[in-house]
Amino acid sequence: MAANEVYQYSIVSALMDGVASHGTPIARVLAHGDHGLGTFRHMVGEMIVLDGAVHQMKADGSVERVTDPAATVTPFATVTRFRPTARARAAVRGKAGLQQLLTRLFPKARNHFLCVRMDGVFRAVEVRTAGGQACAREGMVDVCARQTTHRFEGVRGTIVGFRCPAYVMGVNVAGDHFHFITDDRRRGGHILSFETEGEVDVAAAQMSNFHLELPTEDDEFNEATLVLQAEGIKEAEG
Amino acid sequence: MAANEVYQYSIVSALMDGVASHGTPIARVLAHGDHGLGTFRHMVGEMIVLDGAVHQMKADGSVERVTDPAATVTPFATVTRFRPTARARAAVRGKAGLQQLLTRLFPKARNHFLCVRMDGVFRAVEVRTAGGQACAREGMVDVCARQTTHRFEGVRGTIVGFRCPAYVMGVNVAGDHFHFITDDRRRGGHILSFETEGEVDVAAAQMSNFHLELPTEDDEFNEATLVLQAEGIKEAEG
Repeated sequence: MAANEVYQYSIVSALMDGVASHGTPIARVLAHGDHGLGTFRHMVGEMIVLDGAVHQMKADGSVERVTDPAATVTPFATVTRFRPTARARAAVRGKAGLQQLLTRLFPKARNHFLCVRMDGVFRAVEVRTAGGQACAREGMVDVCARQTTHRFEGVRGTIVGFRCPAYVMGVNVAGDHFHFITDDRRRGGHILSFETEGEVDVAAAQMSNFHLELPTEDDEFNEATLVLQAEGIKEAEG
Repeated sequence: MAANEVYQYSIVSALMDGVASHGTPIARVLAHGDHGLGTFRHMVGEMIVLDGAVHQMKADGSVERVTDPAATVTPFATVTRFRPTARARAAVRGKAGLQQLLTRLFPKARNHFLCVRMDGVFRAVEVRTAGGQACAREGMVDVCARQTTHRFEGVRGTIVGFRCPAYVMGVNVAGDHFHFITDDRRRGGHILSFETEGEVDVAAAQMSNFHLELPTEDDEFNEATLVLQAEGIKEAEG
């Protein structure tokens, strides 16, 4: 796959419907990209892929590196071979500020995908992390109802994220979706809000090719209803 | 691209919103597949790709071969490098019969894509063909409101089609979508109904990889709203 193309395994609606017992080896995902987001079997923690390294961010706020991606499975992941085409050093005022900056950098990308990376010092970052399914097929809304939140202060770290066009809602998450990890790779999660200190470095690219691989020989996926639950996705991933 | 993977250029919601002035050279589409469906600039006629040959089926019921695919542009097309994995020779009772046969051949493909080809003698085939936009940005529902229908009787021909999972509605057409062309390549269109004579040959394959390429540097596409118009798509393409 060329640079700045989206590779995705499975669809968000499958997670909504609790399809998370099986998946694809993370090594296979990494063959398509070095930058991205995802989750793990039974939705235990949040996945962040940064510079080709995969970390599992856990419900207690801690982070573990995935050292054997061939032996670790993901039921849902989105990655790209990230080669930024736009860069900015700017004061970014929280999530809304980052969203505005992306729109300013890519004024014609309303119907395309974007990938983004932001490096800097954070006065505060609030994250949530899903702790996993209580039972097989438990849906993502229920899993996220038990999510834990953490607040990290005065940390240096990186945001990894995607912007997806509205028309892929259900396949992925429409709009912006950001994960965070500290420079020391010891803290992280799905971003709820953040405040930066001074200027930060933003790098991003527009993506116009989207490659979706569906689970095969996975009866959970095959039997799932996969109806669009737009409100539930916004609640769980917004 | 490997066999039995979906390649798609642009999305159905863009046609719904009248985005059809530009597109990609058909030669580029053929690099990804030899079997499929689509349309032409300004939605003039229906496209059928069969054994690597592209035909434009026109509103008067006639058919023209696209002899210079490098110089002809499509604003929307879906193709695959078709290698059937299931075959059946059966009496197929119309569209519903073909749909039931596909479900029987692929009982676990509810959330996957299928491609199909059916060859046989048709007692009757009723097709519709879109005649094109009356003005730039005219949406597909309005274009199809002026479609013409034709009935061909006692013809030998081929159906080319796809089944798409419900969750891609708007990106493509959820459910079954069939085009038809006669063996002599002189008649064809988008199938409304058909009756076969005796047994026909059905060949099909399940597809679990979906590759979407979006238009770039196309202001019509970039500026379109692309909201999901599920009822309109069913009306125009069902």
